[in-house]
Amino acid sequence: MSMPEPARGFEISEFKTRLARAQQMMNKAGLTGLLLTTEPEVGYFTGFLTRFWQSPTRPWFLIVPVAADPIAVIPSIGAQLMGKSWISDIRTWSAPNPDDDGISLLADTLREVFPPDAQIGLPMGHETSLRMPLTDFNRLSSKISPLTFTPAAGIMARLRMIKSEAEIAKISHACSIANRAFERVHEIATTDIPLDEVFRRFQVLCLEEGADWVAYLAGAAGPSGYGDVISPATGARLSPGDVLMLDTGLVHDGYFCDFDRNFAIGQTTGAAAAGHSQLMEAIDAGLSVVKPGITASAVFHAMDKIVTGGKGHSDAGRLGHGLGMQLTEWPSLIPDDHTVLKQGMVLTLEPNVQTGSNQIMVHEENIVVTTNGARLLSKLAAPQLEVL
Amino acid sequence: MSMPEPARGFEISEFKTRLARAQQMMNKAGLTGLLLTTEPEVGYFTGFLTRFWQSPTRPWFLIVPVAADPIAVIPSIGAQLMGKSWISDIRTWSAPNPDDDGISLLADTLREVFPPDAQIGLPMGHETSLRMPLTDFNRLSSKISPLTFTPAAGIMARLRMIKSEAEIAKISHACSIANRAFERVHEIATTDIPLDEVFRRFQVLCLEEGADWVAYLAGAAGPSGYGDVISPATGARLSPGDVLMLDTGLVHDGYFCDFDRNFAIGQTTGAAAAGHSQLMEAIDAGLSVVKPGITASAVFHAMDKIVTGGKGHSDAGRLGHGLGMQLTEWPSLIPDDHTVLKQGMVLTLEPNVQTGSNQIMVHEENIVVTTNGARLLSKLAAPQLEVL
Repeated sequence: MSMPEPARGFEISEFKTRLARAQQMMNKAGLTGLLLTTEPEVGYFTGFLTRFWQSPTRPWFLIVPVAADPIAVIPSIGAQLMGKSWISDIRTWSAPNPDDDGISLLADTLREVFPPDAQIGLPMGHETSLRMPLTDFNRLSSKISPLTFTPAAGIMARLRMIKSEAEIAKISHACSIANRAFERVHEIATTDIPLDEVFRRFQVLCLEEGADWVAYLAGAAGPSGYGDVISPATGARLSPGDVLMLDTGLVHDGYFCDFDRNFAIGQTTGAAAAGHSQLMEAIDAGLSVVKPGITASAVFHAMDKIVTGGKGHSDAGRLGHGLGMQLTEWPSLIPDDHTVLKQGMVLTLEPNVQTGSNQIMVHEENIVVTTNGARLLSKLAAPQLEVL
Repeated sequence: MSMPEPARGFEISEFKTRLARAQQMMNKAGLTGLLLTTEPEVGYFTGFLTRFWQSPTRPWFLIVPVAADPIAVIPSIGAQLMGKSWISDIRTWSAPNPDDDGISLLADTLREVFPPDAQIGLPMGHETSLRMPLTDFNRLSSKISPLTFTPAAGIMARLRMIKSEAEIAKISHACSIANRAFERVHEIATTDIPLDEVFRRFQVLCLEEGADWVAYLAGAAGPSGYGDVISPATGARLSPGDVLMLDTGLVHDGYFCDFDRNFAIGQTTGAAAAGHSQLMEAIDAGLSVVKPGITASAVFHAMDKIVTGGKGHSDAGRLGHGLGMQLTEWPSLIPDDHTVLKQGMVLTLEPNVQTGSNQIMVHEENIVVTTNGARLLSKLAAPQLEVL
């Protein structure tokens, strides 16, 4: 069932389509351009892919005008790599420069590109952040006046929520790598193995199966469940009857999968079996309602009905989310997110159930919204909890 | 030579010492507290360690008052894990909440903790960023008025630049894991192996040798050098005479190493041998000048004299940097950084040389500043380029 690896990168036409959609939205919102500063935002329009974003030292900027091609204003250390992209206007400075880390160059470029009283959209809404020092942002704002920054009208979220076929192929490939790694967990996890060793070995499995890197791994183990889903591994050894959960966000060509699997060590307890069963029922409920036109909230309620009887609330805050160039993206499967699902959205379904006092189990699958409803990208877990 | 793994986490006394130092600096700067939002800042005072920071969805806040213990204002999904830390005042909200993602709770807490006209320090200088939506920050600022935010006077940088013995032990352990992985590169890299396969296998070596995870891997290969040091791996196969460079920032207990190694595939070319020799000479020059009291700039010039003859400039922007909870930290080894080195600073020495047109080689070692000068944390590379 191993699918061939999709081609690396994207055709230039993909970036031009993204740009055209962005420019249409900018026009409608009365924006003369966007200023972008984060890894997924810069990558979305350029294809610029590097793990160097891990270094917080240098800011990176991309200007997306309403009626022209993007302009990269970046540290010179990135010139060579950005030069391989379709972006032709690349301006660099020698960073880090504590006195002026690209701010004069960026201000000059913004003044050159935009009319003096233009409104430049800056992503500043929910789930965004500005990846540059605040002092520098304030300096930049006064340098470019009367040019002003204004909220980007959710343009980046609206664009990125709908994945292209090429993006879906990359996420699907990431999922298939994780599927194969999960099918091999029996090789690495058994009674008496410390959890931190399981974590290391599972990352090895992900790499062996083809992950570029393993950006995220969380997990836990405990009798009939676990306390949370974000703690790092400890040296505690697996015991018979433990439920082991592993949740991975591995990366293929800049795109994430994000799903987990639960395993019983040696034997299944009643509580764990019942928990898993209820989770799979919730997944089924989610899968059955997903289609273009219904809301994120409706998917939440379909699953919540199974896991809490419909209390409309979950301690984990949500029962799934968008997925793509980031581990978690818009929308959120919560009561208050009324985003209307559209064809091409990639989502996780992530119900959780209480299996004891201070114990939960969480299950997660990845799907894409199609005209025919949900299509699974992860391989649906079996109805019965797998025993290792 | 394998050293025992240092104990996980820190003694509470370590956090209390960090807090006392911070409070002393706040007093001196006239600040009544700090508001922190990023992974290393929150982790520095709490020990909160999770890969969940990879999810950009939810903001996390830590308030550090000038005369009281820190207060965590965080999403409820983190309550269990933060509850294991020494922090006793933990306030949570159910996130994500697009209408009010912790802002009311944070504003209420700030108004409760601080006098009405207090100045709250916010890291906003070089190499910082604010990890929350800008719109939410603006709402917060008006909600807490007349309380105001003001630059944090470089307190976080000054604190974090000086590592404790326990921090140095963690970085040293990360380095020892990478040392062992680099000693095994001959097992995974030879003529005809694609570079992306080398990257995968090297990450496996890092995990096998004990890395918690491999947060950063860059590298390149080419005849007598490579074009840059931040590109992702391609499927290009290694050829005889190539120089292969691997640069890793693997993580042990929340702390990074960051160094690289160069290897010749099959045979060494004259240019590569000369390049390596010059790089090791530059490292020697850096090692020989490092001691408490001299500046970051002086270390730059000592190495720059070897690699460019003293032009005072490098395309990569700098010849080394600080290292700790992040892959790259203050200070920068550049002409304009006059930070005075102190005992306990952990640095990389990272000279680069031109080995052909559009070709460079880069070498990197990790050190700690001691009263006796530089002590190597990475195992100094051999004077001759290793041939695989």
